[in-house]
Amino acid sequence: FSVRQTESAYRYRDIVVKKQDGFTHILLSTKSSENNTLNPEVMKEIQGAMATAASDDSKLVLLSAVGSVFCCGLDFLSFIRRLTDDRKKESVRMSDSLRTFVNTFIQFKKPVVAAVNGPALGLGAAILPLCDIVWANEKAWFQTPLTYGQTPDACSSFTFPRIMGVASANELLLSGRKLTAQEACSKGLVSQVLWPGTFTQEVLRIKELVAVDAAVLQESKALVRDTSRGALEQANERECEALKRVWGSSQGTDSILQYLQRRTELY
Amino acid sequence: FSVRQTESAYRYRDIVVKKQDGFTHILLSTKSSENNTLNPEVMKEIQGAMATAASDDSKLVLLSAVGSVFCCGLDFLSFIRRLTDDRKKESVRMSDSLRTFVNTFIQFKKPVVAAVNGPALGLGAAILPLCDIVWANEKAWFQTPLTYGQTPDACSSFTFPRIMGVASANELLLSGRKLTAQEACSKGLVSQVLWPGTFTQEVLRIKELVAVDAAVLQESKALVRDTSRGALEQANERECEALKRVWGSSQGTDSILQYLQRRTELY
Amino acid sequence: FSVRQTESAYRYRDIVVKKQDGFTHILLSTKSSENNTLNPEVMKEIQGAMATAASDDSKLVLLSAVGSVFCCGLDFLSFIRRLTDDRKKESVRMSDSLRTFVNTFIQFKKPVVAAVNGPALGLGAAILPLCDIVWANEKAWFQTPLTYGQTPDACSSFTFPRIMGVASANELLLSGRKLTAQEACSKGLVSQVLWPGTFTQEVLRIKELVAVDAAVLQESKALVRDTSRGALEQANERECEALKRVWGSSQGTDSILQYLQRRTELY
Repeated sequence: FSVRQTESAYRYRDIVVKKQDGFTHILLSTKSSENNTLNPEVMKEIQGAMATAASDDSKLVLLSAVGSVFCCGLDFLSFIRRLTDDRKKESVRMSDSLRTFVNTFIQFKKPVVAAVNGPALGLGAAILPLCDIVWANEKAWFQTPLTYGQTPDACSSFTFPRIMGVASANELLLSGRKLTAQEACSKGLVSQVLWPGTFTQEVLRIKELVAVDAAVLQESKALVRDTSRGALEQANERECEALKRVWGSSQGTDSILQYLQRRTELY
Repeated sequence: FSVRQTESAYRYRDIVVKKQDGFTHILLSTKSSENNTLNPEVMKEIQGAMATAASDDSKLVLLSAVGSVFCCGLDFLSFIRRLTDDRKKESVRMSDSLRTFVNTFIQFKKPVVAAVNGPALGLGAAILPLCDIVWANEKAWFQTPLTYGQTPDACSSFTFPRIMGVASANELLLSGRKLTAQEACSKGLVSQVLWPGTFTQEVLRIKELVAVDAAVLQESKALVRDTSRGALEQANERECEALKRVWGSSQGTDSILQYLQRRTELY
Repeated sequence: FSVRQTESAYRYRDIVVKKQDGFTHILLSTKSSENNTLNPEVMKEIQGAMATAASDDSKLVLLSAVGSVFCCGLDFLSFIRRLTDDRKKESVRMSDSLRTFVNTFIQFKKPVVAAVNGPALGLGAAILPLCDIVWANEKAWFQTPLTYGQTPDACSSFTFPRIMGVASANELLLSGRKLTAQEACSKGLVSQVLWPGTFTQEVLRIKELVAVDAAVLQESKALVRDTSRGALEQANERECEALKRVWGSSQGTDSILQYLQRRTELY
């Protein structure tokens, strides 16, 4: 890892964490999974980095990824292997990991800016409304492919309808409709679209935000978020219970297998 | 009626119901009223068809209409005749019918896809946010002409502000602003605009949704809807009470007469 | 002031009030502050005019401004002078004034139409979602420059996320992003954009709304607003407490000074 005067970068197994002047930059760069997909181990690394950022002098967290993909959701490839070994145990383990991971975002007190560099699928898209500002590369796209037998996660059953209305939310949640960055922006999932050629520089505008007084940032986030925290925690709980039931059933396992097969055909 | 291998079509007086492979298609095609307007009898037929779809093997309901009009709201033509006979009795009868009709949508557990083939006015537009996915023919347009002395119905006082913000909602609810299908889509009332030439074929994409596991569909709808069901039922109750007061007053009757006269001038 | 048959205009110190046929037109035109900024005295004049409109035969209130600016938020210029004299006393006085001013909008029972003729900054933009219909001149623009160390006001921490989603709301509330009238409209903050050349005439369309029965207008507003009034009052309370803390601190005073300096550079 490299250490400069005002920043330090640590390479974990599945993420890179750069402590910069006034903020922490967490980049997905998974080695234990493909396409920045999330398994319990990756989630734990992110939670660890966020816990550090919560208590150090970071004013906010910037979340992005190394490479051309942002995050392709849950790591179904390793999950399916474990699920076929012990369906009950593994569906509990995964839903517990997911609950804790999502609660980390719900309860995080400093602003989180997501810089979506590429495709955001499933959990990778669903988690965005729990971030505070969402910038997307114009090349990014968004999909929650629940048509393949998954119920919603990361409170998307609660946040998506409130952001874009129930009908548009269900196009994503039920029909698995794919949104371009521009579409996601016009629906409110993304707050600004940045051009591919200047994406990295434009993300540096985060420094304007870092110039704001830390207490004002945190107080503003609290004013925006505190009244819905309880409802989000309950939504997370209900969604994780539903997923545990789905994953614990043979149809659930079948639908994941089907999804993985279809995905393979697409690539 | 025609019966094929995987589908059967029943012609009721005011609707056509096609039981298809995995879903129920309900089409407005009123004979007891003009322009697919809704009177207590039409509403009862729809409720009956939805009750059947709720308990049979339908995974979802597709709601549309025969002809070039989707639904022009309440059947004020027959209503005004009855209202002038016995204002008190008839305003109670109509608000009771409306309350039950709207609650049928609020409480329906399977996804409802609305395919809005043409103009959706008043209750015909107001009911759309209680459906789960809303596709509209590019030729369709939307208006809740409450300027003519009607207070909101079908929970639109609750759903419209949450979908498009209070200011845009009030342009519809207070000012009776007319929206094109594209405008309704950009405001979130409609989730996709389909081209007139291919509308009927595109609606068949519903079969992709029908391919999803029934339990996952129902569970996903429950996650999206369950937390707001109580608030919707209360909004429905308040709106029906307000309409009963409006309809029970001489100004209310006058405003309906005025509306019918203006409408006649428009056609 | 001039008195015609159906209208009368009163010039107060900081506002002009025109009682017209069926509605009251309140125009900001401040003499005690620059750019229609709001200090406790200006706010009291508006409250007085609204109290009169609440109890007379006005069916609604039209809110706009004389000149090319709508409202540039709080009058920080006079505020900073008083704040440096007695920080504690003055931060209490200002937050109390703000709380009462915002509650006047939250609790107003007749529809308020805002006709935003020019730039709406800070409180001038934040108050708009507490109006019922918002028309904007195509030349108007919108900014809540909280980056300069201010936490949100006028319930914008509650209303902005509900109108445009959390991510877009935070671009305004945290990053101080500037929106054009068209952008504000596509995000739902503004319900219609009017052309500069015909702005004044188009605003007269308010007469269509004035033609609606007064009871129906008030009942419709009640249906839309009553369920969120309590939450808005609480949001107002929380925001005013936060601002009192900010203003009562030396960093808060510094950030206002910085803001005023930057603003001077911009003009």
